[in-house]
Amino acid sequence: MSDGDPPLESGGHAGPPFDPERFRREGREVVDWIASYWESLASRPVRSQVAPGWVRSELPPHAPEDPEPLTAVVADLDRVVVPGLTHWQHPSFFAYFPASASSPSILGELLVAGLGVQGMLWATSPACTELETHVLDWLRVLLGLPERFASGSAGGGVIQDSASSGVLCAIVAARERATSLRTNSTGLCQNGQPLVAYASADAHSSVEKAAGIAGIGRAWLRRIPVDDWGRMDAAALSAAMDQDAAAGRRPFFVVATVGTTAAGGIDPVPGVAAIASRHSAWLHVDAAWAGAAAICPEFRAALVAGADRADSWGFNPHKWLLVNFDCHALWVADRAALVSALSMKPDYLRNEASDGGAVIDYSDWQVPLGRRFRALKLWMTLRMLGAGALRTHIRSHVDWAREFAGWVAADPRFEVVVEPSLALVCFALRAGDDASRRLLDRVNASGRCFLSHARVNGRFALRLAIGGATTTRSDVVAVWQLLTDSAPP
Amino acid sequence: MSDGDPPLESGGHAGPPFDPERFRREGREVVDWIASYWESLASRPVRSQVAPGWVRSELPPHAPEDPEPLTAVVADLDRVVVPGLTHWQHPSFFAYFPASASSPSILGELLVAGLGVQGMLWATSPACTELETHVLDWLRVLLGLPERFASGSAGGGVIQDSASSGVLCAIVAARERATSLRTNSTGLCQNGQPLVAYASADAHSSVEKAAGIAGIGRAWLRRIPVDDWGRMDAAALSAAMDQDAAAGRRPFFVVATVGTTAAGGIDPVPGVAAIASRHSAWLHVDAAWAGAAAICPEFRAALVAGADRADSWGFNPHKWLLVNFDCHALWVADRAALVSALSMKPDYLRNEASDGGAVIDYSDWQVPLGRRFRALKLWMTLRMLGAGALRTHIRSHVDWAREFAGWVAADPRFEVVVEPSLALVCFALRAGDDASRRLLDRVNASGRCFLSHARVNGRFALRLAIGGATTTRSDVVAVWQLLTDSAPP
Repeated sequence: MSDGDPPLESGGHAGPPFDPERFRREGREVVDWIASYWESLASRPVRSQVAPGWVRSELPPHAPEDPEPLTAVVADLDRVVVPGLTHWQHPSFFAYFPASASSPSILGELLVAGLGVQGMLWATSPACTELETHVLDWLRVLLGLPERFASGSAGGGVIQDSASSGVLCAIVAARERATSLRTNSTGLCQNGQPLVAYASADAHSSVEKAAGIAGIGRAWLRRIPVDDWGRMDAAALSAAMDQDAAAGRRPFFVVATVGTTAAGGIDPVPGVAAIASRHSAWLHVDAAWAGAAAICPEFRAALVAGADRADSWGFNPHKWLLVNFDCHALWVADRAALVSALSMKPDYLRNEASDGGAVIDYSDWQVPLGRRFRALKLWMTLRMLGAGALRTHIRSHVDWAREFAGWVAADPRFEVVVEPSLALVCFALRAGDDASRRLLDRVNASGRCFLSHARVNGRFALRLAIGGATTTRSDVVAVWQLLTDSAPP
Repeated sequence: MSDGDPPLESGGHAGPPFDPERFRREGREVVDWIASYWESLASRPVRSQVAPGWVRSELPPHAPEDPEPLTAVVADLDRVVVPGLTHWQHPSFFAYFPASASSPSILGELLVAGLGVQGMLWATSPACTELETHVLDWLRVLLGLPERFASGSAGGGVIQDSASSGVLCAIVAARERATSLRTNSTGLCQNGQPLVAYASADAHSSVEKAAGIAGIGRAWLRRIPVDDWGRMDAAALSAAMDQDAAAGRRPFFVVATVGTTAAGGIDPVPGVAAIASRHSAWLHVDAAWAGAAAICPEFRAALVAGADRADSWGFNPHKWLLVNFDCHALWVADRAALVSALSMKPDYLRNEASDGGAVIDYSDWQVPLGRRFRALKLWMTLRMLGAGALRTHIRSHVDWAREFAGWVAADPRFEVVVEPSLALVCFALRAGDDASRRLLDRVNASGRCFLSHARVNGRFALRLAIGGATTTRSDVVAVWQLLTDSAPP
């Protein structure tokens, strides 16, 4: 922790998101609890004996407004959660295939969570990539797999979340090879009537990636222009959809972004929804980053407007709600549409509860079959911090971003490139793109801060995204000081 | 832990995979280490300063044969890993968007790992599903999302690993709705020449799921018959591929299974590879469960035969190698084919290291953009247990399965339905399917064990899959005793 005011104490509701002393104490309690849980396994019934709905009936209907102590969570673990578990680590669990943990792997997962780094690019944490390459080479040798899979060859290894993601990656790679890379680009069209998807020019790259994976074809994802604030031009969307429909194509999917990656732009969702609805197209709202701020009533209206007409709406508690990666929350308005697209229930997975239709089987709601118990960390975060403290967390960041934008605007060398969006400020040197790029390189090379960049309204902009668990106002003050010290006079 | 011989001590290499007292001690050390790491954050450079390859150059070329103590791992964490990290939890990390952890969410992830349960079905751990439904309802209210997304409506919420998986699920759901559920079934064919995929009748459901998701169409996945041991009939595969090619269709993808889910059948991979090769089809080997046993030389030949001609080969360390879920290892022989299919590099992710081409960006190797540092737990497991102990772990299970199969064969009421595969035994009562099903229900209802079932050679078989971290020979003895006590005389 840096010094200065802890971001959550201002609300009077909780300690900071990470208090080292408290973590030492509570970490030991959780470690001891896990050890006792394993000691108790053999004496427990292997399969959960609870009836559908029992676990939920034992839980309060709303998230707590104020923090709860670890003791309260642990009491509910014992009272509600553990009886609702089928104990996969039980010595007499012989079902399906094993999914065995060990002490080192649990400690490893704890470290993964404690480090909280992202390995999406080598650059985002080199050790995360290199250790992965390295241990997969270790494993290749241990397994006696051929040299063609070694990282020193044309091949190599990668850890996926599951075999399902693995085979999906493989099938897509195979399809592209078989079609000389044409399918990702031009798609696999049915009866000569292509399906067409729409998203703004600033929508996230994952939309285009999904269009390729799903066989729609990236070329059939229309990128709709945005205005100076990064918001989709609804009139252009309407024209594009009408034109495709008139040409015999089938508009079927629209992504509205609430908080674009580059500049935090918020698409006009109500207008977009009305247009999508005219074509019976599915409306997906991608609020990955900004969505978390909807827990604050003062930000909510702008963020959830139009959600009442969306078919799906997703945001990432792992971005700005203090839940460690990975945790993406996706809601759908018609669960049957999702399940009918994704459900697979081979004989060896059939069971009375599924057949009875009284329960949710979440593997029918996602790509992989297996899944971690991610709800637990979301639950603990909501309970142990409380909604009030989470609101304070977000409000502080928005306040500091506004202050920061004010400092930028007041310095004649700098300018704000687009109006700040929540806790995101995009700014530049008036001296131009090259000067801005050099400034970014200089401050990042100092090791004292890390900002990224984006192209906003055709310009190279520095991006200050506030949201860290340990970031305080004084850290924001310090980064501005560093920027002004490093900028040319 | 149940009493009896700990599975790993027989090898003399390590303690059991989970020793509660040791876990208490080491868990505290890791907790303290994480607390100190967070205390140190503000004084560290935010971005890693290492050059490409430095982390790997500091690591030994092979997995250790014998266990290493936690102190050695922690020393390398400090010496090699931490300098190789860009510190996403640093107070002055302002790049991209935040991915913030908090003390409760880290404790939650620790508990997730410590419980080690699977939430793929409600039945596989009811609390895992119900808590997820519940907290997403909590969040919906906190965010002010409309009632149509409530679990009490036709909609509902689900946690995905990332927004990328979320949008993929959404686009597939939309495509199916737009095509009256036809695409998942009949596919999106290009120029009237459909792509055709092949897998055995006993291949995992995820293959069929992926064929739907990728726009191939589940109908274009040919299910090739298997013999009495659950192995793909290579002659039938050859005939099917020739017939499709003669009809102007494009055979493009073959999945060979090494260890089927039902009975552990192992496809004749070398023969399958030769046939796939004649059609230039991609060969993917799914060794999800059985692949782990290839670390033992005596099992290896049967498991990796033909891998030298596979385009991709995957197995799950989270199944039988004591790494907690999720950890799927996927190797490809031609990384360019994978990356060209999956790479997306928008401007805000571009960086010098990526552009220079000297590094791996693993987000180009998978569906989602974000990813956890899963290599760490694989690394810790390999190091702290050592390859020797992992081999002993697997060998013990195979030995016990053979013993168990011997007991089954010697009891006139029972029979082994198919030759045991590694640590998997499929057996039944001679009295028929109904009697076997009642026996399974009876022993599972006792709470003293949990077996599952499969349809093998047209019969209802009980499945005993040995592989638990805490399972000992005496647990296998006990389950056989329970079965013989519960079976009709």
